[in-house]
Amino acid sequence: MITTKATPDKVDHKEITMYKISEFQLIIEKAINQIEYPAVPANLYQPISYIMNLGGKRLRPALVLIASDLFEGDVNQALPAALAIETFHNFTLIHDDIMDNAPLRRGQQTVHEKWGVNNAILSGDVMMVEANKQLARVDSLFLKDVLNSFNLTAQGVCEGQQLDMEFESRNDVSIAEYIEMIRLKTAVLVGGAMKLGAIIAGAAAEETDLIYEFGEKLGIAFQLQDDILDVYGDPEKFGKQVGGDIMANKQTFLLIKLRELASSSDQHYLLEQEANSHVIDKVDNITQLYNQYDVKDLAVEQMKKYLDEAFRALSSIKVPEYRKKELTSLANELMNRES
Amino acid sequence: MITTKATPDKVDHKEITMYKISEFQLIIEKAINQIEYPAVPANLYQPISYIMNLGGKRLRPALVLIASDLFEGDVNQALPAALAIETFHNFTLIHDDIMDNAPLRRGQQTVHEKWGVNNAILSGDVMMVEANKQLARVDSLFLKDVLNSFNLTAQGVCEGQQLDMEFESRNDVSIAEYIEMIRLKTAVLVGGAMKLGAIIAGAAAEETDLIYEFGEKLGIAFQLQDDILDVYGDPEKFGKQVGGDIMANKQTFLLIKLRELASSSDQHYLLEQEANSHVIDKVDNITQLYNQYDVKDLAVEQMKKYLDEAFRALSSIKVPEYRKKELTSLANELMNRES
Repeated sequence: MITTKATPDKVDHKEITMYKISEFQLIIEKAINQIEYPAVPANLYQPISYIMNLGGKRLRPALVLIASDLFEGDVNQALPAALAIETFHNFTLIHDDIMDNAPLRRGQQTVHEKWGVNNAILSGDVMMVEANKQLARVDSLFLKDVLNSFNLTAQGVCEGQQLDMEFESRNDVSIAEYIEMIRLKTAVLVGGAMKLGAIIAGAAAEETDLIYEFGEKLGIAFQLQDDILDVYGDPEKFGKQVGGDIMANKQTFLLIKLRELASSSDQHYLLEQEANSHVIDKVDNITQLYNQYDVKDLAVEQMKKYLDEAFRALSSIKVPEYRKKELTSLANELMNRES
Repeated sequence: MITTKATPDKVDHKEITMYKISEFQLIIEKAINQIEYPAVPANLYQPISYIMNLGGKRLRPALVLIASDLFEGDVNQALPAALAIETFHNFTLIHDDIMDNAPLRRGQQTVHEKWGVNNAILSGDVMMVEANKQLARVDSLFLKDVLNSFNLTAQGVCEGQQLDMEFESRNDVSIAEYIEMIRLKTAVLVGGAMKLGAIIAGAAAEETDLIYEFGEKLGIAFQLQDDILDVYGDPEKFGKQVGGDIMANKQTFLLIKLRELASSSDQHYLLEQEANSHVIDKVDNITQLYNQYDVKDLAVEQMKKYLDEAFRALSSIKVPEYRKKELTSLANELMNRES
């Protein structure tokens, strides 16, 4: 089906050819298209095909394959875990959209809008089973490690979503609590995806821990970048409406930092603005406060700190430097993105 | 911790001592009490402890252990799978109660009533992960088989719940469709539980298939018995309100069979009665129709057919007959229960 480039007879070459991320994305896209869910009950399985084909960059499953490739693993061996990660991620999207009462996902109706809440709960549930079915295809040699890692990741993601929901009704969330929330909700899945790839490539435990750390720290940096882009992104390139987080009174690094730093009169003004029903004024006025207290710079600083930690973990991984290039450029690309 | 009675040094005895089901239930109860879920986020994990401790007969996990014991397996080896089955079952209760809008479960508030729907969705999700964590503790030798069997079971249960929901808005469900729905919703979990126990005891594939079949057929018979008891149970002993299914216009074998057999004027009368807001009259009048068309006898006949099939599968299993006694008496007890 898919031929690996790192075949044993090429081991004597100086540099074993590596995949590019775009190749991995294609492999994943093709594999997702080939998944056949049961035909009935139609209302149980159609939502799965629907959400799996709403698009997206397939970044998480690609990271499984990149991590595997980093350790000269076979892409075919890692593919089921990559599909498990993508399936699990999409399952969380269905359930999160119910909890967030979101009407749209990637510009299309959310599953619960299209099929109703009960159906969306149950399709999500069976999708979790589908993820586990993919995972069960992993080589028996690595299966227990893979399951333990995946379950820990899945548990973290649920905890992150719980914290995120709880933070909505609080205005005393600390920066440490916020970082812990995004670590769980976003970053453990990035780290977990990469760890699965490394395990399946037969990497040593020390190395799988390092690639996990790389992924987790990168995931935190990525989310902080998201917070910054939401306010300071170029409206032409951002893809979403700039100021969306501000409009929704969403807890972000910027807002929490501002609350921490603002004078008591500005705290008061912030509260007023959070209740401002004129959304354009609201975004302008709160952005003004962000500028006044330099919270963007503080967010960039924090983001760079996590990015540095990520690269430190990567540099400790004992594979030839040339094998890290794809990952390094991907990380830099993600951090310099405009959307 | 728990000592198995079937230790190798006893293999030379003529009859290896077996556990009684009540002993298994105690072992499970104790093991459930010892599970420690994380303390935070409290609202994510408290619902799990809550539902796991609402009681119940622990029949499904006990069946894992009984099936393992049937093949002289070690109870300690099978216990994680038993806990996985019970955890999974309780997860489905949380989500089913949301979908059914049920206020009470075993006389207590349902999880979504107590913690809210969003919280109940997410606690259910993380409970599915907890079930998978238990499962991952199974000996590597059997892990892949166990996962495949468990995932197939979990998928079936979701399909059954989907069909059950869809049947609510239909009045043309056939007996065959109904049996398929209860097979999926109830019986595959009974069969799946027993298959897990057999796999972990090292039984041959042929034997694990037979014990699955025993469990599945028993599960169908059990559900048919439930349908009968709901109408014809002794109000003093039934535990629930007799006629509950009739009041809720629930699809049951009795109702579907009646629809199939009733004259067109009785069909019309049935429709009227289904809309009758005087619930005592409604229960009386529909029970009258059941009596008139002998649907109870037809249900008993169907139930016995599945019970026969179950015992036929059991009799084909190649273990000494004395080892089947506990299972045979359990099955007979379940079929002669009054609640």
